[in-house]
Amino acid sequence: MSAVAPAPAAPPISGVLETGLYVDDLPRARAFYEGVLGLRPMIADHRFCAYDAGPGSVLLLFLRGATLEAVTMPGGTIPGHDGHGPLHYALAIPAGSLDAWIAHLAGQGVAVESRVNWKGGGASLYFRDPDGHLVELATPGLWANY
Amino acid sequence: MSAVAPAPAAPPISGVLETGLYVDDLPRARAFYEGVLGLRPMIADHRFCAYDAGPGSVLLLFLRGATLEAVTMPGGTIPGHDGHGPLHYALAIPAGSLDAWIAHLAGQGVAVESRVNWKGGGASLYFRDPDGHLVELATPGLWANY
Repeated sequence: MSAVAPAPAAPPISGVLETGLYVDDLPRARAFYEGVLGLRPMIADHRFCAYDAGPGSVLLLFLRGATLEAVTMPGGTIPGHDGHGPLHYALAIPAGSLDAWIAHLAGQGVAVESRVNWKGGGASLYFRDPDGHLVELATPGLWANY
Repeated sequence: MSAVAPAPAAPPISGVLETGLYVDDLPRARAFYEGVLGLRPMIADHRFCAYDAGPGSVLLLFLRGATLEAVTMPGGTIPGHDGHGPLHYALAIPAGSLDAWIAHLAGQGVAVESRVNWKGGGASLYFRDPDGHLVELATPGLWANY
């Protein structure tokens, strides 16, 4: 028995729902994410674009500096946020699609910066988006939960 | 018929697999993500920590500046990346868990900065992690795909 009270358990979390990137030129970024990566926008305006990246998975592009101030809407207020630097994130791709992605990126003139073969059997491709963010495409067999 | 060749379709993407955040103090950030949000680390060292946020969903904390240089491992090389600023991302929480999260955050001394009630029926809570990142907890009914 311990005299220290255990920390109260947190309620459940189902997954990461939204991942935000910050870009200097939204039309340039959208051309890449839609034209090269094939993502489908759900909603967009002059300062952001939200992509359906899969069930319960949203990739957000924000025009850098345009979301520093809080935004109040009928349903409430979204507080301010912003970002700099070459962020890293990864997109899941189906097992067996790696070669098709390699060929597709080559055909689109996107240089693959690196490839990693993971011990669990998955593989990752790394390349840059137009803002220098480090994009990874990963097949299953990388993490204990993927 | 159009004389312009259509862009080649991209191979499929299944979802966002990894979301990266950059922190100034990794033990401080881990105390928040594990002790307050209840996330479970899969792997960690002095410069990063990877959390299982749900099936096929990984939240990565990187010590700011520690991943600027590429890292070469037996399976390949992970190129450099880094980030600054109060980034925004969202975690999915189950429908019906919102009140439990509000009580849990209050009990942990985390100030909820804002709440948004979405037209689709979902609701979001916004608060800051120790590095100022804008964390959102969102119930279903926010996006067309959630």
